[in-house]
Amino acid sequence: MAAFADDNARRIPAAAILNIMTDAFRACGLPDADAKIVAGAMLDADLSGADAHGIFRLAGYVKQLKAGNFNPRAEIKVLERSPATALVDGDNGMGHLVMTHAANLAVELARASGVGWVGVRRSNHSGAGSTYAAIPLEQGMVGIYSAVSSSNFMAPWGGAEPLLGTNPIAVAIPAGKEAPVVLDIATSVASNGLIRTYASQGRPLPEGWVISREDGRPITDGKRLDEGMFVPVGEYKGSGLAIVLGLLGGPLNRAAFGRDVKDTTAPQERESNTGHLMIALDPTKFLPLDMFKSEMDRHIHDLASSKKLPGVDEIRIPGQGREARRADRQKNGVPLAPGLIKQVDDLAKTLNITPLSARS
Amino acid sequence: MAAFADDNARRIPAAAILNIMTDAFRACGLPDADAKIVAGAMLDADLSGADAHGIFRLAGYVKQLKAGNFNPRAEIKVLERSPATALVDGDNGMGHLVMTHAANLAVELARASGVGWVGVRRSNHSGAGSTYAAIPLEQGMVGIYSAVSSSNFMAPWGGAEPLLGTNPIAVAIPAGKEAPVVLDIATSVASNGLIRTYASQGRPLPEGWVISREDGRPITDGKRLDEGMFVPVGEYKGSGLAIVLGLLGGPLNRAAFGRDVKDTTAPQERESNTGHLMIALDPTKFLPLDMFKSEMDRHIHDLASSKKLPGVDEIRIPGQGREARRADRQKNGVPLAPGLIKQVDDLAKTLNITPLSARS
Repeated sequence: MAAFADDNARRIPAAAILNIMTDAFRACGLPDADAKIVAGAMLDADLSGADAHGIFRLAGYVKQLKAGNFNPRAEIKVLERSPATALVDGDNGMGHLVMTHAANLAVELARASGVGWVGVRRSNHSGAGSTYAAIPLEQGMVGIYSAVSSSNFMAPWGGAEPLLGTNPIAVAIPAGKEAPVVLDIATSVASNGLIRTYASQGRPLPEGWVISREDGRPITDGKRLDEGMFVPVGEYKGSGLAIVLGLLGGPLNRAAFGRDVKDTTAPQERESNTGHLMIALDPTKFLPLDMFKSEMDRHIHDLASSKKLPGVDEIRIPGQGREARRADRQKNGVPLAPGLIKQVDDLAKTLNITPLSARS
Repeated sequence: MAAFADDNARRIPAAAILNIMTDAFRACGLPDADAKIVAGAMLDADLSGADAHGIFRLAGYVKQLKAGNFNPRAEIKVLERSPATALVDGDNGMGHLVMTHAANLAVELARASGVGWVGVRRSNHSGAGSTYAAIPLEQGMVGIYSAVSSSNFMAPWGGAEPLLGTNPIAVAIPAGKEAPVVLDIATSVASNGLIRTYASQGRPLPEGWVISREDGRPITDGKRLDEGMFVPVGEYKGSGLAIVLGLLGGPLNRAAFGRDVKDTTAPQERESNTGHLMIALDPTKFLPLDMFKSEMDRHIHDLASSKKLPGVDEIRIPGQGREARRADRQKNGVPLAPGLIKQVDDLAKTLNITPLSARS
């Protein structure tokens, strides 16, 4: 598995990344408009710094499409609808497409009813949750995203069987002059992407990330990941969050959870039936948007400028680094490791599209 | 500060606890119906095992009422309303009253629109979040509660100033034959109640609960709490959750957050303007309730009966212990420490009501 960026990373223009991903998905049979949406959602991750969810994933997604595990010509349907809720069937399409649809629908419901809660079934891995939580921001709305991960890596607290995903939650709240607050966290101590990156680079895993299924002892050797389970953040608290998010993203939407989540290491014989949930909330139903934004600015400024502990450079406010990173990468390109560029170029050859190196 | 239960705890009948609390609030000027609602919400905490939010708090609340910090005859108003949202003004009444109102309103909105999101301002400390998250359960609905704590004990990650509450989140999801899933967690490693209990009992605080504001080093001496800050669960993740929950419970509702939260150790010259949020979701807008409940049962059973790590008695599924505790305490009484019983009896004397000892 290639790493996304390392010391030898090259800066690749955002447009080149967007274009090769669009071409790749087109080559896999996605309609033009859909290929653009998926590539755009992945580029959003690359720009924001959610590197594990950007072009890094392209080869994996193409493999799934070629294997027939994702439906390239998905027809997304709304199965159920009430004034403020909807249930979306993703027709086993790419998660990025399904979740972009769901986020826009949540905004539409929220505009009419104040809040919109959209459940999603028959979707797939959709990349970074912040991409979708941030969609309502453009309309001055709050966005909340969660999902049942398409693989189980955590056990319920006390357990020895990985029956839970690292089910993430992402929350985006608009601000005025300050960057919006955008939180995007897995319910494990370390995300799957981070753990796999350490393992692929042969770096020892910090204690507290992965424990043995046999005896609960720490596993620090990345080669032994198969014997391990990821540790939930805050022990029973992260496990509890993964359970409630999973139940609301899964069974409520007739999507997979627990024992229904298939083992991704086994041959994939059927669709993942990945479940998600997406909420949009219209702040103007509570107070004028200008007032909300200026209050957000005041509080963000108060937190960011408050006294730091010795040795701390910056107080961590979710989403504030994200904004600066986007501006930098939009202007100077996205740093990609040579190994990743080569992987994408090799993939381009098999798909008969222009390689990344020739685009930048 | 009295501990709620210890080795010498006596079992006091639930009815006696409910009645003395009702009488106490009546004696402080609450109308009969309101006194009953507040006492009922507090008893719910005592029964569920959220002991830090039950009769343990009675003396503190009475003190606030007597000092004029809570409005005993609050007229709760709905300031804003849309098909699926509402903003409630608690008129500085007791949080239990305001949140019971808000939870019922959320259910009403969800019945019509699928989901209801109720923001709350000008409320006060409302006890255990699970009490309100569980209200929609009775209607077969999902409940989600959060709040901006009325005191700041945590810093944003990297910071040295406590500008964040231990803003909790509670989620309740109905099941069929199994107990409902009820999660109720603070965004700090240890809750305020737990930390104060250790401190009051002179027990050393486990490392990782409280750190020094000066240098970030662990504080384990409960007498030094004033020099410390609580540690967020999962470091920047808990801090991030406390920030987003706080912003959605506070500024969105024109309620206190950050620097606006007054120091509870200072003389209270004005109301707390505590903010909360309450969401109810109607599963029948997604699938038939029977199907949802039986799927919940299947998944709860799968998790609870899965393989345990060596030395583990029981896999921790949120809310499953709660149900058994309620049944036991309803039948056999709530265990209360002699010191707490004495504190309540002394209070009863000052209020001219029958003491607890004489009721059981």
